[in-house]
Amino acid sequence: MNFFDQKMITAHTELGFSTSDLNRSSDLREKADWQKKAYHDDPDTRFILFCKDTPVLAFNGELNALFDREAVKAFGATEQSLFLGIENKVPLFGVQLAASKFDDLKLREDLKLIDMRSVAMQGLFTPSLLSSIGTAKAMLHWHNRHQYCSNCGARTAMASSGWKRSCEACKAEHFPRTDPVVIMLAVDGDRCLMGRNAAFPEGRYSCLAGFMEPGETIEAATRREILEETNISTGKIHYLTAQPWPFPSSLMIGCMAEATSFDITIDPNELADARWFSRNEVRQILAGTHPDGITAPPRMAIANHIMQIFVDAG
Amino acid sequence: MNFFDQKMITAHTELGFSTSDLNRSSDLREKADWQKKAYHDDPDTRFILFCKDTPVLAFNGELNALFDREAVKAFGATEQSLFLGIENKVPLFGVQLAASKFDDLKLREDLKLIDMRSVAMQGLFTPSLLSSIGTAKAMLHWHNRHQYCSNCGARTAMASSGWKRSCEACKAEHFPRTDPVVIMLAVDGDRCLMGRNAAFPEGRYSCLAGFMEPGETIEAATRREILEETNISTGKIHYLTAQPWPFPSSLMIGCMAEATSFDITIDPNELADARWFSRNEVRQILAGTHPDGITAPPRMAIANHIMQIFVDAG
Repeated sequence: MNFFDQKMITAHTELGFSTSDLNRSSDLREKADWQKKAYHDDPDTRFILFCKDTPVLAFNGELNALFDREAVKAFGATEQSLFLGIENKVPLFGVQLAASKFDDLKLREDLKLIDMRSVAMQGLFTPSLLSSIGTAKAMLHWHNRHQYCSNCGARTAMASSGWKRSCEACKAEHFPRTDPVVIMLAVDGDRCLMGRNAAFPEGRYSCLAGFMEPGETIEAATRREILEETNISTGKIHYLTAQPWPFPSSLMIGCMAEATSFDITIDPNELADARWFSRNEVRQILAGTHPDGITAPPRMAIANHIMQIFVDAG
Repeated sequence: MNFFDQKMITAHTELGFSTSDLNRSSDLREKADWQKKAYHDDPDTRFILFCKDTPVLAFNGELNALFDREAVKAFGATEQSLFLGIENKVPLFGVQLAASKFDDLKLREDLKLIDMRSVAMQGLFTPSLLSSIGTAKAMLHWHNRHQYCSNCGARTAMASSGWKRSCEACKAEHFPRTDPVVIMLAVDGDRCLMGRNAAFPEGRYSCLAGFMEPGETIEAATRREILEETNISTGKIHYLTAQPWPFPSSLMIGCMAEATSFDITIDPNELADARWFSRNEVRQILAGTHPDGITAPPRMAIANHIMQIFVDAG
């Protein structure tokens, strides 16, 4: 058996946040001198800016997500910054601007504040830069929400160039969270199970999904989510691919699940509807030609990717 | 293409924490009346007890991890409790006893306090009960370390029968953490890469492993860890299986990685040594017959399981 023989299911580059040339250079996180020089002196260094949870982009006809040092200084005091890594010899930092500046920044003609989902959906940047912007978002959000120690309530301080927070009071160390989520199609031969929740745009159907819980395997979580939401039982689980999803900081783990029961009963607290779709219908949905006007999540989302894998397997 | 055709890589039942018949019954978490009755009245209900991070087991010749209500009451006041789910019609709760009782409990002849790793390694309970004890440990530990709001520093309160903590002050909601870790063998045909860190028992070698970071795919994290620790480059990544690991609350994601470079340079901060082992050597290591006395992690650990998969693939 050769583990690497089988047809690789590779992510298309439109799958957001999944392709990265960033070297995270974790060995440099503890090197205070190097960090100081890269942040304050190195002319190659670039900065990815956020205000609240929104990427701040430079605009002069073209959009640019990377600011140089002079441009960052012009914003005045920043709230926090962290070292992302090095991409093509360029040290990258994520920088949080004060939330109080949000309305002013929105008015400036040399800037655009475009929410993260739109940045990803519109394919505004290279896949690797989009991934770095997503990483900056997830990390900065985590710092915003973890200014205090969950163990003792004291103020914590950033450490390791942003990859840790430390509590002076109780000596606890806190590390960034990554929340695994399973997202899947239950498959019964040439049909698959998709659902919609009440918050979806009209006509939208997608994969089922849910947060993993402590003590679960990927396979058990996949089976539990499908059973809870639709009362469909599943057996074998096949892992496909994963996608970092910075809303706020999830890891979407994409799977196929082999259905072993077929009568749907939805959980009305989770879903507005769920049904079986034939492979041909899924093909139409992805192409935007389904006769009932049913639509798929955008190409940048792993749900779309999983649907495409199901169609391609036919 | 049939996703479920390929030979399933199934976990052997000795793989700890990975086999569960527990129905998490998340629909019951918000039903206060049901919870009250199950906790206080239902004669079938059983309780899994921890003091500090250590399982408390009843002992009368045989070890028992499940206590009935009268036995729990006899311990006096408890620190916190949470609903785990229902297994074979038995509602299960996890209960934390006060850390101050630890030394007294250790002295009692009708109890054994056995650390979680030993409980798992010695195969003291059924795989499913071990999984529930592990889930209780991960969840109780999370509550212990999250008595305060990371967002504002105020005290938080348990909600959703233990599956959430809520902050009255800032209205933040906090959910249990599951930290994904990648653990892998880099494979070059009939040999694989293993390492040892300074804390390992003498002669022990194992898979490389490391925490995933925000913004990474499983595949990217796998490649990064191997590169950081040994300077070996890898290409294709093949997911094998996952293991919940309640130390304190990780999800071990097991992979094979196809090596594309072969000269090892270890990171001395991470490893004491790393080297290539032939398939036959790995077979000997697992059998305890390696001529240099090299040993493997225990059967209950996914590292052992991944090594076995590598041997079996030969």
